[in-house]
Amino acid sequence: MDVNLRAAQLADCPRLLELVHELAVFEKAPNEVDVSLPEFEDAGFGNNPVWKAFVAEVDDYIVGFALYYTRYSTWKGRRVYLEDLIVTESMRGQGIGKLLFESVLKETKELNYSGMVWQVLDWNKPAINFYKKYGAGVEAGWLNASLSTDKL
Amino acid sequence: MDVNLRAAQLADCPRLLELVHELAVFEKAPNEVDVSLPEFEDAGFGNNPVWKAFVAEVDDYIVGFALYYTRYSTWKGRRVYLEDLIVTESMRGQGIGKLLFESVLKETKELNYSGMVWQVLDWNKPAINFYKKYGAGVEAGWLNASLSTDKL
Repeated sequence: MDVNLRAAQLADCPRLLELVHELAVFEKAPNEVDVSLPEFEDAGFGNNPVWKAFVAEVDDYIVGFALYYTRYSTWKGRRVYLEDLIVTESMRGQGIGKLLFESVLKETKELNYSGMVWQVLDWNKPAINFYKKYGAGVEAGWLNASLSTDKL
Repeated sequence: MDVNLRAAQLADCPRLLELVHELAVFEKAPNEVDVSLPEFEDAGFGNNPVWKAFVAEVDDYIVGFALYYTRYSTWKGRRVYLEDLIVTESMRGQGIGKLLFESVLKETKELNYSGMVWQVLDWNKPAINFYKKYGAGVEAGWLNASLSTDKL
């Protein structure tokens, strides 16, 4: 199986958002995706883009992607944040996630950032084991807090 | 006591980094701050700035600050990430943290972002209670993963 990796382009957005929805179902939160296609396209390819991604293609069809952006830590400085790492269910277990993950690691090095950060659900043991093979730290003890603008 | 709130400027950086170190001690991680003053200044006020902050002054002296930047969620779109909310220990309990927190909330609304996100340590009950008063969601279940560039 040949896997082609490349940077995401505007025309990929409909398929990427489809995969975002697929992951939300896997993460048991199918109704949490509020982002529309125009918003998603604008945030990646508009006047003030905030995300980038690598896509993985098999036979010219996108089967997974890794979406990332820059974060800033007052302890560690600039780091890449891996927001999403998604491989469509039928294509898992074939090393595609590994290729995508390593593309973002390579990008982190090339940007000269101090590291890469991301989150993983505490019950997602296969993912945790996958990350630990790279020597990643996986830390409990922090809670995610959020406040929607419509509550303000 | 008069508290003056304003946007952070380049000249504030030495004092802000001092407060970062103070917070790291409070968070039981005094040796985790790797950021140097030139790096911190460049990340806030260089060619490609990645953070902004509000500072709180009493008698022209900075006693706290809130540092934030833009994050992107494939579920919720653009959000403000509150990286640090710090009030120096001797000035706590006087509502300064509240003023800073509310400045960032106001900024989130003005930017038209979908919300604000941040993290809190699970043992920091006073902070958790403070956030819940605003109706914030505080969610367990996610682990923080990281990989330093020097491990790659």
